[in-house]
Amino acid sequence: MTAHDLPVLTTRRRLVEIRRRIAEQGLAAVLISDPADIRYLTGFSGSAGRLALSAERAVLATDGRYRSQAAEQLAGAGVREAVEVVIDTVAGQRTALAAVLGPGEVALQAEAVTWSEAREWSQLLGREPAAVEGLLVEMRSVKDAAEVARIEAAARVADQALADCRSLLGTGITERAFARQLEHRMLTTGADGLSFDTICASGPNAALPHARPADRPIGPGDLVIVDFGAAVEGYRSDMTRTFHVGEPDDEAAAVLGVVTEAQRAGVATVGPDVPCFEVDRACRSVIEEAGMGEEFVHGTGHGVGLVIHEAPWVNGSSATVLAAGHVVTVEPGVYRPSFGGARVEDTVLVTAEGSRPLTHAPKDPLVGVQH
Amino acid sequence: MTAHDLPVLTTRRRLVEIRRRIAEQGLAAVLISDPADIRYLTGFSGSAGRLALSAERAVLATDGRYRSQAAEQLAGAGVREAVEVVIDTVAGQRTALAAVLGPGEVALQAEAVTWSEAREWSQLLGREPAAVEGLLVEMRSVKDAAEVARIEAAARVADQALADCRSLLGTGITERAFARQLEHRMLTTGADGLSFDTICASGPNAALPHARPADRPIGPGDLVIVDFGAAVEGYRSDMTRTFHVGEPDDEAAAVLGVVTEAQRAGVATVGPDVPCFEVDRACRSVIEEAGMGEEFVHGTGHGVGLVIHEAPWVNGSSATVLAAGHVVTVEPGVYRPSFGGARVEDTVLVTAEGSRPLTHAPKDPLVGVQH
Repeated sequence: MTAHDLPVLTTRRRLVEIRRRIAEQGLAAVLISDPADIRYLTGFSGSAGRLALSAERAVLATDGRYRSQAAEQLAGAGVREAVEVVIDTVAGQRTALAAVLGPGEVALQAEAVTWSEAREWSQLLGREPAAVEGLLVEMRSVKDAAEVARIEAAARVADQALADCRSLLGTGITERAFARQLEHRMLTTGADGLSFDTICASGPNAALPHARPADRPIGPGDLVIVDFGAAVEGYRSDMTRTFHVGEPDDEAAAVLGVVTEAQRAGVATVGPDVPCFEVDRACRSVIEEAGMGEEFVHGTGHGVGLVIHEAPWVNGSSATVLAAGHVVTVEPGVYRPSFGGARVEDTVLVTAEGSRPLTHAPKDPLVGVQH
Repeated sequence: MTAHDLPVLTTRRRLVEIRRRIAEQGLAAVLISDPADIRYLTGFSGSAGRLALSAERAVLATDGRYRSQAAEQLAGAGVREAVEVVIDTVAGQRTALAAVLGPGEVALQAEAVTWSEAREWSQLLGREPAAVEGLLVEMRSVKDAAEVARIEAAARVADQALADCRSLLGTGITERAFARQLEHRMLTTGADGLSFDTICASGPNAALPHARPADRPIGPGDLVIVDFGAAVEGYRSDMTRTFHVGEPDDEAAAVLGVVTEAQRAGVATVGPDVPCFEVDRACRSVIEEAGMGEEFVHGTGHGVGLVIHEAPWVNGSSATVLAAGHVVTVEPGVYRPSFGGARVEDTVLVTAEGSRPLTHAPKDPLVGVQH
């Protein structure tokens, strides 16, 4: 991986804050099971792990595959002393975690454990634990400088990969082959993963907001939606650009123009103390005024962080008030069955003064046809 | 994607068989939530879906993103008439599914629903549903000809990608860069996904069975474990080869020789009516006789299908008796801290007469050093 020259990311203060919130809910201890929450609190990114948190103790339990990784990542996050690591079989892990949970009021993350596991914990604890939901949603939605630096590094990788690959769109390449080239470029120039499955949807396929790349060759006259991102140390970027291969006709130019203008209006609205529904409204007004309101069939955006879709949600019913440190996408689109569609998206940081885009690829849609 | 010329895969008989098993358990209906189980029964591969199955009805509920995909995939699996599709919001889906589940004894898949969802179903149904586990494990472990053809197609893609890339191992490439090249090759020559995250572990890193590719340049004298696979229509391949860059010294040659011999002995043991622990024993005996028994720190193998690790399990305590249609890996290894390690793996089909390997890359470990 290319070095990104990133500031140190420490999670110590997060452990203090989550303990405060746990106590505030009248709980003695919580078993953290959501992998992104575990990474957020300890730095550990293994696929199998549980973190038991009480006022006195924090125990991360995982299996032998992750022994060295857990030690390294906890040290990297500055919590090597604050979090005990238990490497054991599943049964051994459960025993160690139960000892931390203790006899008081304890809770499981109900969205992050299976019903099987919840039943096993009831047996093991001799009582049904409480169910908590969304325990870390608010904390995770406000990013610190080290997190923003990682999202920004991911966005830089994605920006550059698109710059390197975009002319391929004019060569008759298929959607699938273009997606694979773009992904390979990100993975070999500093991304340690993909943010999500790349969308490359051309011609009529662009009328589906979540189209999967097909074996359709991209041709002259096509609108092409490219929605993709990179991950750096787990933090993700998210960006969409819509291209046109050759000069667009009037319909394509109109759709593209309206979506681009709507997106600009939405981004201009992002700032501290702004309710999310106002950002949605700003985008939607432009599209409605152009008579395309029925064709904007999804919400305007979402938060981005260790997970590609997280709080805050940016849609017409979201009253969340934006604050410095929120990172959200603004991504209006217009979808016209059998014709095609357009979507333009940036990932934007809310700052104390206003906002700052983290994605920067040019919005010029024109791609030359290559013979 | 390259055309693989695959036989049609139909799931109709699977729906008949699962209904027989549901009735056998005294249940009126089951809510299938495991994505691989849903794909196995209906062909639908979307990331969000629930399948309610009673004796009379089968309803697949999902959201608007998957409208055309669901219709196409159910038709492809020959169950367009047998399975009703409901496209709705989550609340609307729940109502439609509840109507199928009805007032009788119904069950949820306890390993495949979150505790949150189980609690919501209890409320919606007005009673706690039963918990089933492993409902489709046995059915899914025995592959039909159409499934074998897909695993074999995936294995062919992986075999060829390794043939195309292996000489790169002698060029000073890093583990990470090699893994990305191999993956890109598979994804551009017929794979529609990766089977799992590629392992490329060289020198001391090869002493970790689940090492993640690092930025370590692969050099002369290194043993290099490459463990990877492709997916075709959801079905996965799994293969490991261990290479040596330049001529191996005595220790490396000894480790490689023992592991290769153990793997050959394991594969030779695979066949109908053989208990899985005997395959494990065959591998382990060779390694123990060489005095390396302590260094073979994991089970011998696992089933492979729509999920990379599934039944039957091949280890010392697995009494499952192999039968025609089982597809298992045989993958003994030896891991020596600070020195390195070796693992050799094939995916093998159990046939009526014996067995047939589905992975075919040559086992010659020598890679020339390129200057």
